[in-house]
Amino acid sequence: MLFFTQCFGAVLDLIHLRFQHYKAKRVFSAAGQLVCVVNPTHSLKYAPTRCAAAQASTEPGILPPCPHHEAVHDPQLVPCMCPLFSCPWEGHLEVVVSHLRQTHRISILQGAEIVFLATDMHLPAPTDWIIMHSCLGHQFLLVLRKQEKYEGHPQFFATMMLIGTPTQANNFTYRLELNRNQRRLKWEATPRSILECVDSVISDGDCLVLNTSLAQLFSDNGSLAIGIAITTSKVHSSEAEI
Amino acid sequence: MLFFTQCFGAVLDLIHLRFQHYKAKRVFSAAGQLVCVVNPTHSLKYAPTRCAAAQASTEPGILPPCPHHEAVHDPQLVPCMCPLFSCPWEGHLEVVVSHLRQTHRISILQGAEIVFLATDMHLPAPTDWIIMHSCLGHQFLLVLRKQEKYEGHPQFFATMMLIGTPTQANNFTYRLELNRNQRRLKWEATPRSILECVDSVISDGDCLVLNTSLAQLFSDNGSLAIGIAITTSKVHSSEAEI
Repeated sequence: MLFFTQCFGAVLDLIHLRFQHYKAKRVFSAAGQLVCVVNPTHSLKYAPTRCAAAQASTEPGILPPCPHHEAVHDPQLVPCMCPLFSCPWEGHLEVVVSHLRQTHRISILQGAEIVFLATDMHLPAPTDWIIMHSCLGHQFLLVLRKQEKYEGHPQFFATMMLIGTPTQANNFTYRLELNRNQRRLKWEATPRSILECVDSVISDGDCLVLNTSLAQLFSDNGSLAIGIAITTSKVHSSEAEI
Repeated sequence: MLFFTQCFGAVLDLIHLRFQHYKAKRVFSAAGQLVCVVNPTHSLKYAPTRCAAAQASTEPGILPPCPHHEAVHDPQLVPCMCPLFSCPWEGHLEVVVSHLRQTHRISILQGAEIVFLATDMHLPAPTDWIIMHSCLGHQFLLVLRKQEKYEGHPQFFATMMLIGTPTQANNFTYRLELNRNQRRLKWEATPRSILECVDSVISDGDCLVLNTSLAQLFSDNGSLAIGIAITTSKVHSSEAEI
């Protein structure tokens, strides 16, 4: 009996996910756009020392504090950027993708334009939704984070990081788009390199920021669909003149 | 001597405004786009009773509380929507524009696309920047407000209201665009009618919301340039399918 109940529950979940997928696809409508349902992970408390370590490791003569590894002074050495865990891993840029896939089971999607469908937006902060995006010969990490910068007032922060160097990151522009209920919000920027710290990008607020009421306006049944597009950078025409 | 010092100050101010105007024009680049420098007004404390009065006046049988006028039950009667003053004026939609121009000296600009250049963004909350925009045969009110929803954390809220009925408002879409330093933020929505209360639109967060760090990223020398465009509404293609 228990077995049948569980089976029935699983089927219901599948139908629910399929329905969300279908709705997101219609909202974003672009033919062939890949919709990826991303489930949340309730974060452990963030470890600020990771950022400090990453930043310190780029300063000559200062060894990064690291309880698990021999301190190696190498500006290309990246602490694990997956904000879900206080992961002690450190490694070179070339192996970050395989670490994120294998250790943290973060999915990787192909395509210049995808739809990121974050479920269960009501979960309490801190919560993260993460996916990797393979496009134009590079891999990007999309992080959506629910966090309380001001106690009792959770906000959503979304940003895209290139798993590459800052110089490589400058060659791209990413766009995040929310579109629902006759409202549309678009954020376009140059991705940051994963060598910078996602925590500091979010604390600087240099990303798409939504307060709870805006997030609710764009959510549908507890899920938030974010259209993502990555292009090679062209200097914004309006700024090129300056 | 004092006279010459004042003259010199005035000339410097003019040069500064001209320079800001010129920069904003280059940022937004669209040929012929009108740039309007909007100075802030430090708001008096908002009078929440104005909203309550406006809302109550639309409920049958409930007379709006109004200390200055005879209570008249007329859903088209608008309390003064200029948030700068606790203005006791009430009047019909047709005379709101002339009241705002004559009593509050709010400028009115023509054109489908304009640039709203709000100066002195550093001023403490509550502060408002307001302009009227005449376009497509109607008048719109753009309100940019700096307000502390959470004590000690000022945010910027920008919205556009039609000086007309909700039915008329549904025929339009407005777009607010910030563009600076390889970042771009766009908000598109249907304007609200001025018969609804600007205070409640802002408290609902159903508008463009910027926290201080984002506003600083988009500001140039203490001024924020917002590109404004109004079009007649077409149902967003992506939603039309639903």
